[in-house]
Order: sequence, then C-alpha cells, then structure tokens
Amino acid sequence: MKLYGAPQTRSVQAVWMLEECGARYERVLVDIRGGAQHTPEYHAINPMEKVPALVDGEARIAETGAICAYLADRFPEAELAPRIHDPERGRYLQWLFFSGSCVEPSFMEKVLGIDVNPSQAGWGNYAKVLDVLEEGVGDGPWLLGDRFTAADVVIGSGLYFGVRLFDLIAPRPAFDAYIDRCMARSAFVRAQELAEDWT
Amino acid sequence: MKLYGAPQTRSVQAVWMLEECGARYERVLVDIRGGAQHTPEYHAINPMEKVPALVDGEARIAETGAICAYLADRFPEAELAPRIHDPERGRYLQWLFFSGSCVEPSFMEKVLGIDVNPSQAGWGNYAKVLDVLEEGVGDGPWLLGDRFTAADVVIGSGLYFGVRLFDLIAPRPAFDAYIDRCMARSAFVRAQELAEDWT
Repeated sequence: MKLYGAPQTRSVQAVWMLEECGARYERVLVDIRGGAQHTPEYHAINPMEKVPALVDGEARIAETGAICAYLADRFPEAELAPRIHDPERGRYLQWLFFSGSCVEPSFMEKVLGIDVNPSQAGWGNYAKVLDVLEEGVGDGPWLLGDRFTAADVVIGSGLYFGVRLFDLIAPRPAFDAYIDRCMARSAFVRAQELAEDWT
Repeated sequence: MKLYGAPQTRSVQAVWMLEECGARYERVLVDIRGGAQHTPEYHAINPMEKVPALVDGEARIAETGAICAYLADRFPEAELAPRIHDPERGRYLQWLFFSGSCVEPSFMEKVLGIDVNPSQAGWGNYAKVLDVLEEGVGDGPWLLGDRFTAADVVIGSGLYFGVRLFDLIAPRPAFDAYIDRCMARSAFVRAQELAEDWT
C-alpha cells in the first residue's frame, strides 16, 4: 500500500487514518512545488492531480473522504466504521461526506469573503456548517458517541485546521474540547510528524 | 423506508437511486417554501435542515452522496457498488465523493463568477473538474466501464443539471453521450416524474 502525498497538505488526514488502521504502508513524496502531480504517471493515479492518493494493489483512490471510507472497510479489525446494516452507518457516512461537501467549501466561502445563498449551495453556508459541527461534536466524545470512527478523522482534521492552524473559526468550547480529544490520540500525534517527512 | 424531499431540489438524485435499487419507500414532502425544514422534528432527521434525507428504520442519512453510498450497500442484489475488497471500490468511492466535494462547489464557483486558487481549493477549480469529468465519462458507457453504479447516479445527476437543465456547462460530446445514456434508464425516467410529486 502506497500513500502519495506532500508536506503541508491534506495528506496528513490520510496518514492519520492509516495510523488509526495500523496499516503497513509506504509514504511516497509527490513534489507538488516542482509540478510532479502533473506528470502522466501521477495523473493515472489521480486525474485531479492533487494529493493525497492511495494505491492498494490494483485499487487507486483519491479524495480524502473516499480514502478514509475505503480504509475503514478495508481494515474491519480496527473498528473505524459501523458495518453495513448497522443503523449507525447512516450517520457515519453522512459525516464522512459532510467534510468534503460542506466543511471544506464553507471554509473557502470564509477565505474568499463571499456570501452564498444557503438554499442554493449544497453546504448551506458557513454559519450553518459551524452550528451543525458544534451540535455534532458537543455531546462527545466522538461524532457517534463512544465510538471513534473514520468520520472523526475527517471532521477532526477540518476543525484542527480551521481553529488551531488557521484563524478561520472563532473558538467555541465544544470545538476546543473535541480537538483536544483528537490531539490526544497517538495516531494523530504520529501523523503530524510522519506527514512532514516524505523522504 | 422514508425519503424526505421536495420538488425541484437535489431530492431527485435520491429518488433515482431508490428506483435503481428497486426499494420500497415512501416519499414525504418537506414544505421547504413554508419553512418545514426548520422544525425540531426535521432538524432531528437532518441537522443541516436540507432535503433530501432518508430514514430507514433507526438509520438516518443525509448528504446525497451518503444516501447513495448507503443504499448501494443496503441493496447488494441491485449490484450498484463494487463490494468491499473489490479493487474497483476505490475508484467507485472516489467518484461518489467527487460529486459533492468537487462538482458541486465548482458549479457554485461558476454561478458566483469567482476564481479560486486551484492549489487551495479541495476541488481544484471549475475548469479542472470539467476536464476530469470528461475523461471519466468518455470511455463509457459508465464511470467504471460496463458496470453502472451509484457513482453514475450522482455524477450523471450533476451533469444533467449542469448541461441540460441549466446553462452552467458548455456542451461537450462526451457529456452529451453520457447524459443520454443516463436518461435512457427507466429508473431515471421514473425518478424525474416521482420527484415532482410528493403528495
């Protein structure tokens, strides 16, 4: 299993997930400053020419949410996803998709300083996304209660990015407590270090 | 199984998927013009207060991609998803996530007339998303070759919306041929009618 990535990118989310799975994998640097993501070789791995991307035997996967969904089912022993036919799988999938479909675009809305029409945009708007996140992580410890899942990897990464790394989100107690819980996981700690080192 | 929706919304994607599954379900109108999506009852079903949302026994699911992912695994006999451990599952998940994470935000970029920095936005930018879509549907007949999957429901819906219903995307032969293939499916035809009738 090979993870293609680069420092200071969304690759860290995939590293965190792989560490949670206890997977054996190789980290392969894509020199995005040098344009290596635009080569035909990498285009065949991810036509979007972005990192991260995962190659697992014949399987090729990009989009961070998809990588996390794939790995959670690929490593059932890690218990990072409710199984098919478990009623909790619905909410689990909802949160996994919510990250890329709502959290990420709403951050761009904030970065660009624009206002979208909440009935038009799939993500509603920035304010609504934050309220839904606050409600989701408030009860805790995790999005599905006592069960840590791949959904926490993507949502936790988004909140860590928005609250702690950049000043995109004004602090809220529920966010801070949840981010602290994420940061206390050994796989999170390992991932922060590994995701900066692709030699 | 109950699908909560409204006419002229993304609900039609979920109806198409349910029809592809051969599911038995009830369509429940959410009077979004009257604000019914903001009631505590509906908030408990989908905290984003948007349609569609699916209730399946104790399971509650929103986000269109998540609904399609859930249903494809819930109805394995419909053969709308590669199974776990099938190498094709990687690309399948990638396309499912690509719809909400890349196609939808890139459409908003176009609607709002803004330009995003492709190295910053998770979806790259509008031009890149169209090129990746063209490459994805070009060989056909479906995203995974001969196998029609839930990924075609979400990507096909997006292209139908962008090319045929609204003038968001300039025609390309590969898009037109793919949309025609989608529109020829009986489940697609039924969904267009059913999704306007929630009495």
